[in-house]
Amino acid sequence: MKKKLTVVKIGGNVIDDPQALGEFLGLFARLQGPKLLVHGGGVMASQVLRGMGIEPVMVDGRRITDAGTLRVVTMVYGGWINKDIVARLQAFGCDAIGISGADGNVIPAVKRPIKEIDYGFVGDVMPEKVNSAFVSGLIERGFVPVLCSITHDGAGGLLNTNADTIASALAVAMSGEYEVSLVYCFEKKGVLANPEDDCSVVPLMNRTEYERMKESGAVKAGMIAKLENVFPALENGVGEVIIKQASALLEEGGTTIKL
Amino acid sequence: MKKKLTVVKIGGNVIDDPQALGEFLGLFARLQGPKLLVHGGGVMASQVLRGMGIEPVMVDGRRITDAGTLRVVTMVYGGWINKDIVARLQAFGCDAIGISGADGNVIPAVKRPIKEIDYGFVGDVMPEKVNSAFVSGLIERGFVPVLCSITHDGAGGLLNTNADTIASALAVAMSGEYEVSLVYCFEKKGVLANPEDDCSVVPLMNRTEYERMKESGAVKAGMIAKLENVFPALENGVGEVIIKQASALLEEGGTTIKL
Repeated sequence: MKKKLTVVKIGGNVIDDPQALGEFLGLFARLQGPKLLVHGGGVMASQVLRGMGIEPVMVDGRRITDAGTLRVVTMVYGGWINKDIVARLQAFGCDAIGISGADGNVIPAVKRPIKEIDYGFVGDVMPEKVNSAFVSGLIERGFVPVLCSITHDGAGGLLNTNADTIASALAVAMSGEYEVSLVYCFEKKGVLANPEDDCSVVPLMNRTEYERMKESGAVKAGMIAKLENVFPALENGVGEVIIKQASALLEEGGTTIKL
Repeated sequence: MKKKLTVVKIGGNVIDDPQALGEFLGLFARLQGPKLLVHGGGVMASQVLRGMGIEPVMVDGRRITDAGTLRVVTMVYGGWINKDIVARLQAFGCDAIGISGADGNVIPAVKRPIKEIDYGFVGDVMPEKVNSAFVSGLIERGFVPVLCSITHDGAGGLLNTNADTIASALAVAMSGEYEVSLVYCFEKKGVLANPEDDCSVVPLMNRTEYERMKESGAVKAGMIAKLENVFPALENGVGEVIIKQASALLEEGGTTIKL
């Protein structure tokens, strides 16, 4: 039987709130068994960009990443947020090691081809090239990898990459060796049947249920982007995906998605 | 017989020059045998600080590090510079992994006590607590660690730390397991007998020679700060220290210092 591994993704809204982030990291440190954490950014990248005189440009919730923006997101995600999380986890006795997708060539990516929109230095993960052996090597030696959402093109260039996608690709790659549970943590209690009602959490969901909710408009753009990563992960070896509130990481609940 | 390990420190002036840095990294990638790289920052941290409306404060060449400055140096050293170096080394086929002193609890430090000057969030390395086993574990698995000059206090706080000191403490800690050569790379050809004459490199130096040159004024403040890290390293197990030009990493030459 395969060992269990929990891949946790923590979202931007929690990262932006130092108290919520601290609370979450305390819970994450107590999570039993092999685990790893994937984090994105938050509003801090936009704040630093404006401080540096660069106006952030978003299209459909995606950041257009020119050379100056790439430098800032690498500084914020790979520098401050990643090292702050690592230092805090170390203080909780969790032997974290913070890396980007360039380190150990963990997440090779390609610069997104220009179609209608030029996203700039944005990376699309190459799922078949994810270096799961490197990650499992760290885990087997007792470390807890903490990945920021920066990847590289193998030719010396860094790329800004969606953290949900990294979590999903990594969960799939690790599922060859582990029984993987992929947990997306954010500020809501799960997928809501009624977006206006925080208590209307859908406890179990499959693809049919998802398609039905998408059609009825119950799930909206942000959640759809998240869920579109979920089903390919389940189809490619991940055992279950759970979407839940960061502050309830160790509790039952949230939305569990299976095929 | 112990295996050889080369600990290379690269200085700020080279980091500030993208072409010189690229050339150096190409040479470093070709350096034979187990190795690791320690880097500091450069002028970029001060540029970003000014961009964020924080005026850099230096006392005797040391940066006074308030909370905002700590955030910026962590972003610049641990984020941009570290990940840029890693991505470029990966492109040269060198399997680099970039870390700070917080990752894997590699370099525990204490916040510098306030005496005449309050340096703020500046860390003094605790040499006896350097986690050499973590570093040798990475090296034995074929990785090339790339350390930035950020450490942590074990209580969740990051600390800005002198890169020369980190290189020296790490070289000492690794000398239990390896025969360590510590190489400080910078823009000059070595320690100069006459600071005005770039060709007056002192090929061999010991403590007596150093004391004589310090008295005569041949070595100046910046080099003295560097050399003060050298002799404790040699006294605590490091085989040799070499101070040389970054562009001549693979060539003979520079200043070799032994006890």
